[in-house]
Order: sequence, then C-alpha cells, then structure tokens
Amino acid sequence: MKSSRSLHGINRRELISGLASLPALSCFPFSAMAQVQTTQDGPLGSWNEGPAKKAIVDFVQSTTDQASSKFVPREQRIATFDQDGTLWVEHPIYSQVVYCLDRVPVLAEKNPKLKDIEPFKTILSGNREAIAKLSLYELEKILFATLTGMSVDDFEAEVEKWLASAKDGRWKRPYTELIYQPMHEVMQYLRSNGFKTYIVTGGGQDFVRVYSERVYGIPPEQVVGTAGGTKYGYEKDGTPFLTKEPKLLLNDDNAGKPEGIHLMIGRRPYAAFGNSTGDREMLEYTAAGDGARLMMLVLHDDAQREYAYGPAQGLPETKVGTFSQELYDEAKKKNWTVISMKNDWKRIFAFEKG
Amino acid sequence: MKSSRSLHGINRRELISGLASLPALSCFPFSAMAQVQTTQDGPLGSWNEGPAKKAIVDFVQSTTDQASSKFVPREQRIATFDQDGTLWVEHPIYSQVVYCLDRVPVLAEKNPKLKDIEPFKTILSGNREAIAKLSLYELEKILFATLTGMSVDDFEAEVEKWLASAKDGRWKRPYTELIYQPMHEVMQYLRSNGFKTYIVTGGGQDFVRVYSERVYGIPPEQVVGTAGGTKYGYEKDGTPFLTKEPKLLLNDDNAGKPEGIHLMIGRRPYAAFGNSTGDREMLEYTAAGDGARLMMLVLHDDAQREYAYGPAQGLPETKVGTFSQELYDEAKKKNWTVISMKNDWKRIFAFEKG
Repeated sequence: MKSSRSLHGINRRELISGLASLPALSCFPFSAMAQVQTTQDGPLGSWNEGPAKKAIVDFVQSTTDQASSKFVPREQRIATFDQDGTLWVEHPIYSQVVYCLDRVPVLAEKNPKLKDIEPFKTILSGNREAIAKLSLYELEKILFATLTGMSVDDFEAEVEKWLASAKDGRWKRPYTELIYQPMHEVMQYLRSNGFKTYIVTGGGQDFVRVYSERVYGIPPEQVVGTAGGTKYGYEKDGTPFLTKEPKLLLNDDNAGKPEGIHLMIGRRPYAAFGNSTGDREMLEYTAAGDGARLMMLVLHDDAQREYAYGPAQGLPETKVGTFSQELYDEAKKKNWTVISMKNDWKRIFAFEKG
Repeated sequence: MKSSRSLHGINRRELISGLASLPALSCFPFSAMAQVQTTQDGPLGSWNEGPAKKAIVDFVQSTTDQASSKFVPREQRIATFDQDGTLWVEHPIYSQVVYCLDRVPVLAEKNPKLKDIEPFKTILSGNREAIAKLSLYELEKILFATLTGMSVDDFEAEVEKWLASAKDGRWKRPYTELIYQPMHEVMQYLRSNGFKTYIVTGGGQDFVRVYSERVYGIPPEQVVGTAGGTKYGYEKDGTPFLTKEPKLLLNDDNAGKPEGIHLMIGRRPYAAFGNSTGDREMLEYTAAGDGARLMMLVLHDDAQREYAYGPAQGLPETKVGTFSQELYDEAKKKNWTVISMKNDWKRIFAFEKG
C-alpha cells in the first residue's frame, strides 16, 4: 500500500538527486569539444573497447536490424536509466537533499517556529558535523516540509534558481556538469537508433524534470520518479493552479521502479541501466521480456576520477547507491553487464579532456 | 486525498470506455478511402467550413510559424484529448462498462459464490431491464472485481480478446470503429505539425492503452487515465510480473485531469479537447497558459447520425458525458469553441461515405 505510506515509509532514495541550471550549450564549455571527439571516435567515444561497450553496440545492432531475429519495432524501443550514480554523481550526498537543506533558512523565515524544532534547528546551526549525523527520517521531514504546499510553478522556479548557484564541493561546478559523459553518449546513441530514453529515478520526479531536457536531452514527460500528489485549485481571480501535496503516489525505487514504468510508460523496457539495489527490480523486469534485452549496472570503482564505494568489490558501504554483493552475484549469474568506471570509461565528465 | 479513496469515492467516469481489436489497417475497411479523401480535401476533410475548423487551423498556423508571436517550440507542443464522447461514442454506456459486465460470467465460474451475491446475481440473470437499473456504486463493485488481482499481461490479453468480438448494439460494429473521423483528422493534423497527442481519459488507463496505438495512433505512454496501483512479484520460477491492485492512484476526471497531466506529462497542454463537465478543469488549466491555447468541446447534437444529449442545448441528460448549461456558459464566456457534431462534421465515422 505504497500510496498510503507516510514519512516513515519513505526510503532513502526519495531524498535523492538534484541539479542543472543553464541551457546545455552555454553551461557546458567543453560540450562542443566532446561533440567533436564523439564524432571522431564513433558514437561511444568516451568508452574503452571491452565487454561493456560491446554489449551496448551488439544490442543496438541486433534490435535495429530488420533482418535480425531480435529486431524490435521502433515504437517499442524503450530504454530506462536510473539517475543518481548512473547518470551523475550521487556521492557523498544526493543533490536533491542538498537542495532541501538549502531551502531550510527560507522556510524558517516564513515560519519562525521551525528555528526551535529539530531537525531544522540543527540545520540552521550550520554545524556541519551535527548535520552529517542527521538520520534519514529527519531528512525526510525536511523533504516534505520543503516541498509541500508550494505551487508547482513556484517549485520549478525555486529549483531553477538553486541550480544556477549551487555547486558540488569537490569539483566546484554546478551539479549539472557532473553527469557521466559515457552515459550521455549511450543515451544519444540509443536515441539516434530510434530508442525513447527515459529516466526512472528514486529522486523526485518534479525536481528532475526541471533540468532533464537541457542536461540529458530527456523531456519532462520521459522522467519517471518518486511523485507526490498535487491539488487543483483557483486563485482569487479564478486562475487555476496546482499545489504540491504531502501525499506519496509513487515511491519509484526497488519494486516501485517496474510499477512506475507500468504506470507512466505502459511498456516493458528493452534496455535498463542502474547502479544499486534500488535498480534490481527494474533490471529483472526488463530481463524478463522476450528477445534481446540489455541490463547494465555502473560500478563505482574509481576513487581517483570519481569515487569508489559499494560492498560488491569490497569497497566501503555508503549512505548512497548500495551495490551489494548479492546484486553483483545476480548480475554475474544472469549475464547482466557490470560497467567498471575505472576500466570501461576513458573519461568520466565532459569537462575532462578524456 | 484521492489515493485513499475506496469504492465509494469513485465517480462515474471511472467506469468508462472500451474497444479496438484488429490492426487499424485491416479492421477499418474504409480507412484507405478516408485517407484519400483527407488528402483531396486537406487535412481536415471531414470538417465543414466554420468557426470550429477555423479555430483549429488558426491555432496550428500561429503556433508553428516561427515568425508568429504565438510560436511554440516543437518540444512544448502538447495536445490532450478526452476519449469517451470526444474521440468515440460513449452513449448509451461506456464500452469499458460493457467489458466489465461481459467478464462477470468468467469470474463467476472461477468463484461460484458470486452467483448469489448482488450485483453479480442480477448481471448473471441476463435480465436487461434489471441490469440497466443497477446503480453506479454497484457497477463500481464489478469494475474492481473484474480488474483486481489479474496480472497486467493477462488483463491485456483479455481486453484484446473482448475487443475482437464485442460489438456496439446500434451499428453492429466493433467499438473501435466508432471513433469520430473528424477528431481522428485533428489528431493527425496536430501530429503532422509537431504536436504530441495524448489521451487524457476518465476511463481506465490500462484498458485504453491496449488499443490506443492502432486505433488513434497514440502510443500507450501517451495515454493518461484513471489508474490503479500494481504490485511487483515473482512466479515460482523467479519470473517477475505485475498484478493489478484494488488501489486507486489517479482518478483522472474533473480536477484529476490537470493533476494527471502534471503527474504523467509534466507540461501544460497548448490544446485540449473534451465534451463534458469532467473535462472542464483540463480546459481551464490549458487556457491558463500563456500565448495561443485551443480549448474545444464536442456537443452531441446529432440524434440522426449519432446521439443528441446534454442539458446545454435543452437535450436530455444521460448517465454519460454531461455537458451542463454551466459548462456551456463558461465556454461561451471564455471563447472556448463548441463543436456541433451536426453542423461542423461532414461525417461522423470513417465507414460513412461522408
């Protein structure tokens, strides 16, 4: 009974994800260079030769060749991508959580009582150590407090504004620049072969939709995410508007991913990309279809260029993106492809020279 | 709190809609002819000249002309269509209700206890007069009983099978042939001008998705409808599947239409078409956007070629598709266009020679 879940029932992934502020062309100074390089090296220019790249190319060739027994009609070509840790950096904290934390002072100004209530009090203290210790349940409180009761238009404007100024702590760049160039190329490659690419994220659907088109080339209607209800109402002058409600309609993580895919797309994907146990069911559901199916998992094993985490490789477990040993074993057993960031990717970000 | 609504909270429109069985090309013997005629007469060949046709053409010209102040970028071109009474016949009973009634004997065979429980007892009696008197609440009971607990694949197969044999009582044709040719032309005209066409129906989303692509040229992912939850689970051999749950996620009628549009599309439409009070909020929401917007309502005023009903024109009120005087007045006041089936349409169905 997911829809009746309240604060307690919401899992870690609902706290997820956040970024992108300026039009792609103007905010990615290196994207033009990336484009050229892509052309020189073929459609997957940032990929090293190896089993991961081969799996992608083989899949596309067999599903788009009319002579192949695995040919898939164009209208059925659906590919789904998890976002956090699959398309962009999720470590050490989901961008959407940062967004929610950043909104707390604004909320406290409107409602001064919050200044004496936890976890708002801790967040307002600015004590980084104390903030880092907040439990997920306490962060969930913030998530709902920050999102509920806003009109959807105001929410969108706020996120835009935040994305324009917020920067990641390590790279000192807008979050929207921290997308994985090799995955960007996979999405472009699939689209140029007639696939419709979708984001299927545990993150907030309305949040990701704000920047998905300019950052990933994925229009808002192709973003499936954790979604709350809205309420239709009227301004005094009769103008209708939608307000965000504190009601969870879709918890788009774990089993919620195939359920969300059914609700929002209504077709089983032919390809699915993830990086954590939250993506397992989406990959299983994809794999259960007939014909050629492509299931891939990104393994964060590159401490130097990005991060290394997840018990699958004996790496440290973190609060984000758990790639468990169990998932790793399932992947190996079922011939899903594990992408090693370290070995399979020539470069991680568009702003690297590659 | 829509998601927690149970049987009682579900309104009439949730009982809606049903049809289409064979591939469009083979099941529409006149579609080839219609195509030719469309070409000869322009893209809206089944429309008489008049304010309705002019409103459509003017809207498309101004939104697609880069020199126009009302130009709309291609990716933002969204048009939404109610289904029952807007795209196909809804009178005297929604096709999906007929589908549900038709399933009762199958259910009773699996669960013989139903034979002694109302409303199943009445339906199994075959007494048409008694069946016609069933209340909406009783029909809702059936709707949930017929849909719940099936796997989504089984449901799809069942609907396919039903559509292949069920026929409308008046025209003795599959329900999928009773779509309005002029509306079909509007959808094609909009698509050929870069618009993405969506169905936004009070009817069951999963039901309409079974035939939307072949009948309307609208893929399942562009069908927004009343939607229940599903539950992800596994067969004994580990194969995953989704089962339909008796839980309402989206009541896609009245205020639920703009709420559903936000959830499933995430963009405000530039054009919206309906025929009843259930579509009012969708049209209001569409109209509240900037620039050129097209709002149209189909008035059923053609008793000879289709049906005449709705108090807006002093016509009899029915159980389906209420076009109230209040809605009519709102349309006139706000310059929404009312389509007269009698005056604006040269022909109603593709199988008419027009």
